[in-house]
Amino acid sequence: MDWPPALDDLRMAAAIIAPHIHRTPVLTSATLNAMAGAELHFKCENFQRGGSFKLRGASHAVLSLDDRAVANGVATHSSGNHGAALALAAGLRQAPAYVVMPRTVPAVKQAAVRRYGAEITLCEPTLESREASLAEVLEKTGATAVHPSNDAAIIAGQATVGLELLEEVRRLEIILVPVGGGGLASGVALAVSQLSPATRVVGVEPANADDAQRSLAAGRIIPSDNPQTVADGLCTSLGNLTFEILGSLEVEIVTVGEEAIISAMRKVWERLKIVIEPSAATAVAAVLEGAVDVKGKRVGIILSGGNVDLDALPWI
Amino acid sequence: MDWPPALDDLRMAAAIIAPHIHRTPVLTSATLNAMAGAELHFKCENFQRGGSFKLRGASHAVLSLDDRAVANGVATHSSGNHGAALALAAGLRQAPAYVVMPRTVPAVKQAAVRRYGAEITLCEPTLESREASLAEVLEKTGATAVHPSNDAAIIAGQATVGLELLEEVRRLEIILVPVGGGGLASGVALAVSQLSPATRVVGVEPANADDAQRSLAAGRIIPSDNPQTVADGLCTSLGNLTFEILGSLEVEIVTVGEEAIISAMRKVWERLKIVIEPSAATAVAAVLEGAVDVKGKRVGIILSGGNVDLDALPWI
Repeated sequence: MDWPPALDDLRMAAAIIAPHIHRTPVLTSATLNAMAGAELHFKCENFQRGGSFKLRGASHAVLSLDDRAVANGVATHSSGNHGAALALAAGLRQAPAYVVMPRTVPAVKQAAVRRYGAEITLCEPTLESREASLAEVLEKTGATAVHPSNDAAIIAGQATVGLELLEEVRRLEIILVPVGGGGLASGVALAVSQLSPATRVVGVEPANADDAQRSLAAGRIIPSDNPQTVADGLCTSLGNLTFEILGSLEVEIVTVGEEAIISAMRKVWERLKIVIEPSAATAVAAVLEGAVDVKGKRVGIILSGGNVDLDALPWI
Repeated sequence: MDWPPALDDLRMAAAIIAPHIHRTPVLTSATLNAMAGAELHFKCENFQRGGSFKLRGASHAVLSLDDRAVANGVATHSSGNHGAALALAAGLRQAPAYVVMPRTVPAVKQAAVRRYGAEITLCEPTLESREASLAEVLEKTGATAVHPSNDAAIIAGQATVGLELLEEVRRLEIILVPVGGGGLASGVALAVSQLSPATRVVGVEPANADDAQRSLAAGRIIPSDNPQTVADGLCTSLGNLTFEILGSLEVEIVTVGEEAIISAMRKVWERLKIVIEPSAATAVAAVLEGAVDVKGKRVGIILSGGNVDLDALPWI
């Protein structure tokens, strides 16, 4: 695979993972359109296997490993969704999966990762603790590390969300993507820049975890350390690969506040009647709060996942 | 229209309402299939305009009225969804809508009815109070009453859920339908008995609001009076028309407990990532709790609606 991945690489990734993922639907809502004054197209990765887009990248990465590499299993650190996805992906090759998770992630995400067959190691919610714990796991098991976002195969896998959305909705003017480690945003930006260069890709971060915005403005990676946000899937920071892609493609980043995220999440539940997680709601919040000017435009919004602890809803 | 409605009447209803309703998707879940040991096909009327199947019957009824009848508006008593649907349907003809609601229905359903443009009159949560309040409204406004379920046009409208499901999924062996006033179950049973007589239609009631089961067993209508159930859309009782259809077509009725309803609702939110209301969950509960033997069968489940008060989830 080229670096950065070329269009052919993205299409190859789509072909490799197609038998293992759902082609997710695109939903619309007249009420949400009226609220936004725009034409909103919601790409529903909350309906993806494992409950988020993460299986795209994880299955692409695992299916791309050679047999020897996969024999000792795969390992990662993850705030939840990538861990679940990697466990599912490892299952495609009957390989063990080891997942390091911050002890602060919602119980439902820990349970999902376990149910999909991974062995979990809990750590502190800091990048240092994640990386140290993962190093120990790798040492002990001989597994191959699969990073949640800063990995060419992962980025190419996440890009397939963009390929599908461009096929499903014509002439999108803006596509909004939640940004944590930046794998999804990088993949979508790669696809869009090659297939539909007139379409703007805008990344959305919680203001409380705005490392991508700060890093791209500064021209160097400035990670967030233990950020506090309801969007628990967006606590990780850009890596060198995602920083490079988002920077070179000039992807604009906007931020949204905690209350705006919660309010947007609730509106999607009430209007679209679907379950999305706070991380997915950031992109909706950016539209409803005017962080991006979408008036009169055709807008794609990537609802990145739907794994929520139903006992701990943020508005209660 | 014939009584009982003939297949041509149901197809005519479908043609009349088609421009105004969504054709709702059918979803599946490998995990829920594994839990049930069956192949489950969920017809998602929670995605219908107004958040429930009720717009089908209401729009058919309102569009079937002559201009003079509709001029003074339409009125009904409703625990929520039919009221919202009637308000939407009245809007199709620029007619006023008057809705009598028990003061116990969730705030979100009251708000929806108001938002769709209806004038609300609150009453006590008993059949007597509903009927007395509605009589007053009719007297005052000259509006035409549109009953939530015990009305031939309503039943023919709800039957279109059955027509669609039979087109969308071949060779269903069982179709499960929530039963309140019985309009949906009667309509679906009429469609299925004529188009796919080998398919069993099973009605599902909360054990706490089991008037249909008791009435059909006794051979006479025995209404529930102010039943207490989390499935607030299923508190109404059969009327003479729905009693006649469910009886003559020998529709079997099963019941499910409150905890089973709540547990099934939660499983659908977690697995399908969609928002359904407790009334819709009764049909899922019947499968997951073994109230109906579905092992190895192809099963249709009608998820009747998704209007839930997100501040008052039943498991919290």
